[in-house]
Amino acid sequence: MIDAIPGRRSIRRFTREAVSDEAVDRILDAGRWAPSGLNNQPWRFAVIRDKAVKERMASLTRYGSIIRSADVIIAVFFEQNAGYDRTKDLQTIGACIQNMLLAIHGSGLGGVWLGEILKSGVEVGSLLDAPDSCEFMAAVALGYPEGKAPEAPERKPIAELVFYRG
Amino acid sequence: MIDAIPGRRSIRRFTREAVSDEAVDRILDAGRWAPSGLNNQPWRFAVIRDKAVKERMASLTRYGSIIRSADVIIAVFFEQNAGYDRTKDLQTIGACIQNMLLAIHGSGLGGVWLGEILKSGVEVGSLLDAPDSCEFMAAVALGYPEGKAPEAPERKPIAELVFYRG
Repeated sequence: MIDAIPGRRSIRRFTREAVSDEAVDRILDAGRWAPSGLNNQPWRFAVIRDKAVKERMASLTRYGSIIRSADVIIAVFFEQNAGYDRTKDLQTIGACIQNMLLAIHGSGLGGVWLGEILKSGVEVGSLLDAPDSCEFMAAVALGYPEGKAPEAPERKPIAELVFYRG
Repeated sequence: MIDAIPGRRSIRRFTREAVSDEAVDRILDAGRWAPSGLNNQPWRFAVIRDKAVKERMASLTRYGSIIRSADVIIAVFFEQNAGYDRTKDLQTIGACIQNMLLAIHGSGLGGVWLGEILKSGVEVGSLLDAPDSCEFMAAVALGYPEGKAPEAPERKPIAELVFYRG
């Protein structure tokens, strides 16, 4: 697992091969195993395969070509009725997304976390008939990777990130 | 890896065995491999081993006994100067923390994400000489697990979490 974490890449181009429902559920399962404060599990999901719905989502972001190319989009929402502290709730949503990205990678699939589409959160919510209490948080595009995985964007060295050891 | 994700538990009791510096750096390394919007990598860390410092941290939360018991505390901060969108920045901090928790688990160590201590964020920051631009986000307590791992808190079934499939 420790090797898998730095081995994950953001995959933005996909083949036409279909992702099975079982694989999607395995990914959602990984997401729901994230820890949450008070075990509040504030994540909710929409699973999009329909081409027409994907096309409408694609029109809501400048990264529409990724959405069109991906076999499946998992839209992640924050159920505000389950929230207890916005800072911690957003963190735990991020933990849930990271679990899903790792499960995607571990399944031989590829995926990418799309955040720019948040600017169209209200439109995404109404497209997917999301409950009013659900706030759009991210889209995860996934499928079988096409071509070579990209290089990882460079990371700051640990020494630059740690300001205190004592 | 997919099995490791649901296999992780929140560990709150630790033996006195020391965690090596190499293990700590492997955990921080996993954290910095989280994806971030614009690759902004807004996470910063403080690594606390010193008993007196841990004791002062312990006094700032009702979960002080966990902090006292843990060999190492990794305090996670958000470098606001690196931030670009608070919602996405908090999510990516959560992804970073989750990577560290999984790396802890994958190293045969145990750890727990402590959030209640955020109420004392300013005090934690000044205790650790954090730059003013760094906002305290979470403490991760880690060490070698003592006793049997607790049961996992129950998770909602996937069917309850998915409001749309299309």
